Amino acid sequence: MVQPIEFRLIELIRERCAIEREDVQLGIGDDASLLAVPPGQLLAVSTDTLVSGVHFPENTSAFDVGWKSLAVNLSDLASMGATPAWATLALTLPRADAAWVAAFADGFAALAREFKLALVGGDTTRGPLSITVTVHGFVPPGSALLRRGARVGDGIFVTGTPGDAAAGLHCLGQGMQLVAAADRLVERLNRPTPRVAQGLLLRGRASACIDVSDGLAADLDHICAASGVGAQIEIESLPASSALLDAFEASMRARFQLRGGDDYELCFTTSDEGASPLLEDLARSGCGATRIGRIVAGSGVCVRDARGNEIAPDRGGWEHFA
Amino acid sequence: MVQPIEFRLIELIRERCAIEREDVQLGIGDDASLLAVPPGQLLAVSTDTLVSGVHFPENTSAFDVGWKSLAVNLSDLASMGATPAWATLALTLPRADAAWVAAFADGFAALAREFKLALVGGDTTRGPLSITVTVHGFVPPGSALLRRGARVGDGIFVTGTPGDAAAGLHCLGQGMQLVAAADRLVERLNRPTPRVAQGLLLRGRASACIDVSDGLAADLDHICAASGVGAQIEIESLPASSALLDAFEASMRARFQLRGGDDYELCFTTSDEGASPLLEDLARSGCGATRIGRIVAGSGVCVRDARGNEIAPDRGGWEHFA
Repeated sequence: MVQPIEFRLIELIRERCAIEREDVQLGIGDDASLLAVPPGQLLAVSTDTLVSGVHFPENTSAFDVGWKSLAVNLSDLASMGATPAWATLALTLPRADAAWVAAFADGFAALAREFKLALVGGDTTRGPLSITVTVHGFVPPGSALLRRGARVGDGIFVTGTPGDAAAGLHCLGQGMQLVAAADRLVERLNRPTPRVAQGLLLRGRASACIDVSDGLAADLDHICAASGVGAQIEIESLPASSALLDAFEASMRARFQLRGGDDYELCFTTSDEGASPLLEDLARSGCGATRIGRIVAGSGVCVRDARGNEIAPDRGGWEHFA
Repeated sequence: MVQPIEFRLIELIRERCAIEREDVQLGIGDDASLLAVPPGQLLAVSTDTLVSGVHFPENTSAFDVGWKSLAVNLSDLASMGATPAWATLALTLPRADAAWVAAFADGFAALAREFKLALVGGDTTRGPLSITVTVHGFVPPGSALLRRGARVGDGIFVTGTPGDAAAGLHCLGQGMQLVAAADRLVERLNRPTPRVAQGLLLRGRASACIDVSDGLAADLDHICAASGVGAQIEIESLPASSALLDAFEASMRARFQLRGGDDYELCFTTSDEGASPLLEDLARSGCGATRIGRIVAGSGVCVRDARGNEIAPDRGGWEHFA
């Protein structure tokens, strides 16, 4: 049952997220939106849900929840090499709190404007706080970045500095928020940067790609499974932010970088030949990438220390095999 | 964090909802699906969330929840005159209950198969039970059914027999489930029929259209507001099912038919000239429509009794103005 208060919330979201796109023939306000995919382009579609207390701490600001609910979805388009176009927003709220919704919409819109993404529809319902966004983007046929193209001998790369978001979550749990480094890490948790421009640069150059949402090792393992290969990561080569280096010692860093989620960096593979110009292009794009290992025959992800010894995850971090 | 149990649930849903479509270039299993919209067609997109205890009783069977979560979305495509093609499914579950998910997927798939709709992506998360489906369909440019085209003098029509679902919900609340008529009404609540074929027949013939999800009077009011017109409904002309007639007296029937939600029938307007052949075509499609009133100058929805006196809603039903 759509209540008058719901219409006010929808109007509020629509106003704050207003972005003009010529390919939106009919936007919010009827039973469906009507959209024109450019001729010769494939439509890339992805959906992700954030549940309060599961995917973000319950006291996360409304602005950050709005930002993150779009960011995690844009990250999926980035990892396919797709150009963002449209989104729908399904917002379930415990109460009709206009101030909360306004701040949420501002966070969502801040990121939507950056990528000229139009909000084209949605649903506002009553219930425990959760947000489902469905994003739509375009990619030319044959150029999407898939998980399944990694080949033995390819280098493995990651953008940015993985581990920051998981470290930020740890800081929140430990009440470390007022330390400068912790604030920077929490910022990475709450306002991840979808690597859309980097995904576009990888088209036709990366052999496989995935965005790091469940942790670098787990997501790289998806590339391995889809490609029928194995991966070796050198732990010393993992790029760490100065904030992470300032705040945590090596064992904790390894845990956050390999097993922590919510990075929304891109992990990709490419052959050695094209790697150098690609890395230069990425560095110029504002977010460089680092070589962290190589694709090998076999299956699964193997992590080695500086001496070449294999290490494995345990509950506290990553340790040498017994 | 994607857990192994989540992969099993996703696999289970994927298997049970498997439908081949040539326009799905890449389905479930990567970071986004890759889809080809047919040349010369617009994409129609809509999203709806169902929250347990809000949009369906908490003890609703998993099969019915799966069915309904797709049906309410297909109804939005039907009301636009769009042909269904693809859906994404965001499923938030309190626990990883494989039997529940299997039955849910069977309900979803039963309806998906009927409309050759492919499930192309989704997300499975932990949290209070809710389901967000985003549907995609096709419609030729210029032929979508909008809310804003109703003209003064047009007849107002509704498919099927509105009020049954709200009456079914009332029966559940009153423990009337074992009465034969009540069972038929509850069936309409739990397994609504999206009027997709009827929406296609209305293309180029209806001047405005909406699906009845919030109650006939409220949804017709959306047509009035979007079209800048008013509507007069004759209460005696509302088509009632034999189950509704068997189980409820006139005042309750009026309440369910005008204010009850969850019908998922189509309410549309059209000029008198084309009405007869359209009604014949609809009747042949398996779900006829009934003329219930006419569009007038002004604004808002006015309901009249058999003597032409205006009646208005109150808490118990619809009564004469004081």
